[in-house]
Amino acid sequence: MTKTTVYHIPVCPFCQRLEILLSLKGRRNAVNFHVIDMTQPRPDWLLAKTQGTTALPILETEDGRILKESMVLLEYLEDIYPGRRVAQHDPYRHAVENMLSRMEGDFCTQGYLYLLNQDTTRRDSLRKGVLEQYSRINRFLNEHSPSGPFLFEEFGLAETVFTPLFMRFWFLEYYEGFELPDEEKFARVRRWRDACLLHPAARQVTKEEIIKIYYDYSKGAGNGALLPGRRRSSFAFEPDWRMRPWPPQNKYEESATDEALGLIT
Amino acid sequence: MTKTTVYHIPVCPFCQRLEILLSLKGRRNAVNFHVIDMTQPRPDWLLAKTQGTTALPILETEDGRILKESMVLLEYLEDIYPGRRVAQHDPYRHAVENMLSRMEGDFCTQGYLYLLNQDTTRRDSLRKGVLEQYSRINRFLNEHSPSGPFLFEEFGLAETVFTPLFMRFWFLEYYEGFELPDEEKFARVRRWRDACLLHPAARQVTKEEIIKIYYDYSKGAGNGALLPGRRRSSFAFEPDWRMRPWPPQNKYEESATDEALGLIT
Repeated sequence: MTKTTVYHIPVCPFCQRLEILLSLKGRRNAVNFHVIDMTQPRPDWLLAKTQGTTALPILETEDGRILKESMVLLEYLEDIYPGRRVAQHDPYRHAVENMLSRMEGDFCTQGYLYLLNQDTTRRDSLRKGVLEQYSRINRFLNEHSPSGPFLFEEFGLAETVFTPLFMRFWFLEYYEGFELPDEEKFARVRRWRDACLLHPAARQVTKEEIIKIYYDYSKGAGNGALLPGRRRSSFAFEPDWRMRPWPPQNKYEESATDEALGLIT
Repeated sequence: MTKTTVYHIPVCPFCQRLEILLSLKGRRNAVNFHVIDMTQPRPDWLLAKTQGTTALPILETEDGRILKESMVLLEYLEDIYPGRRVAQHDPYRHAVENMLSRMEGDFCTQGYLYLLNQDTTRRDSLRKGVLEQYSRINRFLNEHSPSGPFLFEEFGLAETVFTPLFMRFWFLEYYEGFELPDEEKFARVRRWRDACLLHPAARQVTKEEIIKIYYDYSKGAGNGALLPGRRRSSFAFEPDWRMRPWPPQNKYEESATDEALGLIT
């Protein structure tokens, strides 16, 4: 028997969820986090574990069985470790947090589509798509938790699910100039987001790291793919992101080289 | 305090999930099922409960609070009623059934797209799309439950989630001539599907009812919408589907009238 292991990409929001949940439970060190380099083909030993699928995170139990999908893994980690219960016990409250958590898929998709977009004529409709997602969450919070800031008394399951996405969406501020408008219809979700971003359990990544590492997404290349004329992905582990300059913000006008991004020194 | 109430469309697969779960728990009569006519605009009293959304089922708790989404409602009903536990207790097993259950969205989408399609040139790719979904479930079952027929010992949560879709896909047999090929790569999912379809807890609808009521979907009109030249939807409650003839199968050549469908007598 070895320790429970999570194979993950450190900057990935779905992986960060697991780290946040474990932090809330005071169990961050109960799990071995094994880092995978997204810019390299998945190693054979990993593909053998996943039966060929490439999505991460995956979890390997102490006796070598494999589980996948962050939402499934959150529940599994909650179940196997004692400590503070992050999800609600009461059936009604748990249903409410589940309803909110299930909005994460569309929220994530809209934000990533906006970042990946290369067509200036689509920017406005993509911005509206993201705003509609925020507005939908705002309505939900106004219905179920008008006073807030969190859905319930404490940072819980829904906050664990959404906070990594709120952090990733810093890339929309930087590369698209996106800001949540200062309007009443976003007031409640803004209060929620801001409280989530301040929570000490969600400090695994920084804005600077996200901006630098997601540069290639802003130019249309996802999942560690290489852009034309480039030899290194912005997801490369070396040189460390802290040593690289901030990338250019004008994604529609400029394509930065490896050298300009500090990827080749 | 009144009884827990589910507002539902009887032939809807997401609603049937709740009925199956309650049947497995021996609690079918604990919940009041209130039938909504999909061919009429949602009544104002219902929209007041849902805050304007139209998707069903929704659940109203004994003290008048509203919950939505079949996957959330399944867990809620499991939690509030004693009786046989349908979901697995063991964290690993529960994670496995969750992984399988989460495949339901793509499975459902592919099947409905195929049924709704009106373009003969797309039939082959849509058929392949549905087959890929079956194949994916086949691989999952071979990995986690090679002997079967069910994922675990008994008809459980994943079966509750998928069986209504297996039943709905009878409409693909009828309107598209779709059959799961007699090949090894579908053998395990076929065994699962067939065992699901035989289970006594999943007898809320029949093949004949599904074929007749989904006729308009086969012609491209979903959610009770009216087709050109028609005055009544195939989802109408009257005349009762038992009194109507079987619809024509050749969806790409013929558009049946209200009279031919037995909707106007």
